[in-house]
Amino acid sequence: MNKLKDFFKTELPRINHVLKKEIQVLNPMVREVGEHVLMAGGKRLRPMLTILTSRCLGETQKDIYPLACSLEFLHSATLIHDDILDNADVRRGRKCTHLVFGVKRAVLAGDALLALANMMVARYDIPAMNYCVAEAILQTVSGEVVEIDNLRNPLMDETTYLEIVRGKTAFLIQAACACGAMVAGASRDVQSRVSSFGMNLGIAFQLVDDALDYAVDAKLLGKPHGNDIREGKITLPLILFLKSLATQDREILLEKIEANSLNEKEMQGIISHIQKAGLDEKVRQEADVYIKEAVNSLLTFPESHERCLMEEMVEMVKSRNF
Amino acid sequence: MNKLKDFFKTELPRINHVLKKEIQVLNPMVREVGEHVLMAGGKRLRPMLTILTSRCLGETQKDIYPLACSLEFLHSATLIHDDILDNADVRRGRKCTHLVFGVKRAVLAGDALLALANMMVARYDIPAMNYCVAEAILQTVSGEVVEIDNLRNPLMDETTYLEIVRGKTAFLIQAACACGAMVAGASRDVQSRVSSFGMNLGIAFQLVDDALDYAVDAKLLGKPHGNDIREGKITLPLILFLKSLATQDREILLEKIEANSLNEKEMQGIISHIQKAGLDEKVRQEADVYIKEAVNSLLTFPESHERCLMEEMVEMVKSRNF
Repeated sequence: MNKLKDFFKTELPRINHVLKKEIQVLNPMVREVGEHVLMAGGKRLRPMLTILTSRCLGETQKDIYPLACSLEFLHSATLIHDDILDNADVRRGRKCTHLVFGVKRAVLAGDALLALANMMVARYDIPAMNYCVAEAILQTVSGEVVEIDNLRNPLMDETTYLEIVRGKTAFLIQAACACGAMVAGASRDVQSRVSSFGMNLGIAFQLVDDALDYAVDAKLLGKPHGNDIREGKITLPLILFLKSLATQDREILLEKIEANSLNEKEMQGIISHIQKAGLDEKVRQEADVYIKEAVNSLLTFPESHERCLMEEMVEMVKSRNF
Repeated sequence: MNKLKDFFKTELPRINHVLKKEIQVLNPMVREVGEHVLMAGGKRLRPMLTILTSRCLGETQKDIYPLACSLEFLHSATLIHDDILDNADVRRGRKCTHLVFGVKRAVLAGDALLALANMMVARYDIPAMNYCVAEAILQTVSGEVVEIDNLRNPLMDETTYLEIVRGKTAFLIQAACACGAMVAGASRDVQSRVSSFGMNLGIAFQLVDDALDYAVDAKLLGKPHGNDIREGKITLPLILFLKSLATQDREILLEKIEANSLNEKEMQGIISHIQKAGLDEKVRQEADVYIKEAVNSLLTFPESHERCLMEEMVEMVKSRNF
C-alpha cells in the first residue's frame, strides 16, 4: 500500500488547494458552512477516483483538479443537506452544520455547493458530464428518500437495503469514476466498464461502512458505534440478525424497532449479539462480492501505474477498519 | 394585451403538461412536495420567457419545452428551499412545504428538482446552458444570503437592496431568457443583449413585487400586505420612508426595526404612511427605469410576433396589481 500512500500524500494537498481556491467565490455566509464540512478532513475518495480514472485512461493534458474537486463539493453538499433533521428530531442533535449555522444557512450552503460544482463541471464543455453528475445527485436524493421512508420499517429487506446503498452512496462514486473516463475521452464501452467499477466499489464501500457501525472498536471508528440502530436505520447487519432469530423473537424485536421503544440496554444487547455472531464479518463477505466485481471491471482497464493504485484503493475499501 | 392572453392560454397547458410529465421520474416522497408547489399555480413567467426568446430568435425546430420547464423547476426548488425557516422562526409558520411535509423532505425535494432541471438542460448538449443555470442558482443563493444577512439591519441601503434583488430574482429570469437565446444558437452579442433584457425585467419584476407588498388592496395581492416589514426585510418602500423621516424619528424607528420590537399597530402605521406618501408608487417609478432598459434591449431583437408579445409581457410586469 506504500504506492497508494505516496499518491495520497502528493495529491491530497493539491486537491485541498483547489477546494480552498474554488470555494472562495461563495458568499462568506455559506462559504463558512462549506469549509466547516470540507476542512473537517475526509479521504477525498471521490476526487482521487476521478484523477486516477482519467490518468489510467490516458488523460495527461487537461487540468482535471476542478473536475475532481467538483465531486467533493457535491458530496459535501449532500452531507450538509442529509444532516438537516426534521423538526421533530432536532433534539437528538449532534453538532451538524445546521446546528452550528442554523437550518437556513445549511440549506443555502448545500445549494451553493451544488451550483458551484455544476459550474465547474460545465467548464469542461462535455454536456454528458453535467448529465452524469446531475443524475448522480438525483439518485443520491432518491436513496436518501427511500432510507427515510423505511426508517423503523419492519418490512425492510435486503433488496430495499441495496436500493438505498446504491442511491445514497454508490451513484456519486460511480459518477466520480465516469467523469474521469469522460474527461479522458473514453469510448462508451470503456465508460460503461468504468461506471460498473465505480458502482460496485461504492456499494462495497457502504456495506463496509454499515459493518463498521456494529464493529467492536468504537474508538477506531471515531464515532459511537450502533449509530444506525439508534437512528432507526435497518442496515444489513441488523437484517441478518433479524433473519437469525426465531419467528416470535423476531416479531417482538420488530415491534420495538417500529415503535422506537428499544432502550439503551436492549440496543447494546443487539450490537453485542451481532458482533458475537460475526454478522458484521458476514456483511464484509457480502461486500467482497462487489469488490470482486469491481476488480473484474478494473482488470479490463489499460495496465498502468494508476490501475495498480486503483487496485490498492479497492483493497483499502475492502479492509478498512475505520 | 389580448395577443399575450391568447399566447398564455395556448402555452400554459403545454408547459403544465411537460412539468407534470417530467416530474414523474422523482420518487413520490419528493414528487409530492414538488407538485404541491408547482400545481399551486403561478404565472410560469420563466418558461414563457424561454419560449418567447428562442422563437423570437428564430428557433423553430427543437422541442424547447423541457428547457423552458427546467427553469420553472429551478424556480420551484429555490422557493421550497427559501421557505425553510430557521428553527427559531418556525412558529411564525405559514403553510409552507416544509410545514406540510417536514423540513427534510422539503430539502430533498428542492435538491431533486435542482438535479432534474440540470439533467433536462444537459440533454440539449449545450454546456454553456448548464453553466448559465448553475450560475443563476448560485446568484439566487447569494441574493438570499445577503437578504438574510441584512434582516433588520439599520445600515441597509439601496445598493445592498439592489444586490439582493438582482440575486434572488433577476438572475434566474435572466437565465430563462439567455437559455432561450443559446438554444436558438444566437451569437454572443445577441446573448448579451438578451441577458441584459432579462436582468432588467427581473429587477423591475421584484421592485413591483416589493411595491405591491405595501399596496392598498391586500385582497388583490392574495396575501396580507406588509409581509416584508413583518419578516424584517428592509425593501425599497421602507428605505424611502426611512429617508423621508427627520433624523431623530429615523433613529427611533431603526432601533425598533433592529430590535424586532415593532408592534402590529406601529407596523400598520408605517404601511399607511408609505401608502399616503405614495412611496409604493415611487418604487414603481424606479422600476420603470429598468423597464425602459429592458425595452431598449428588446427593440434590438428581430421584429417578430414574439417580440410584440414580449413587449406586452414587459407592460404586464410594469403595471401588474397582484
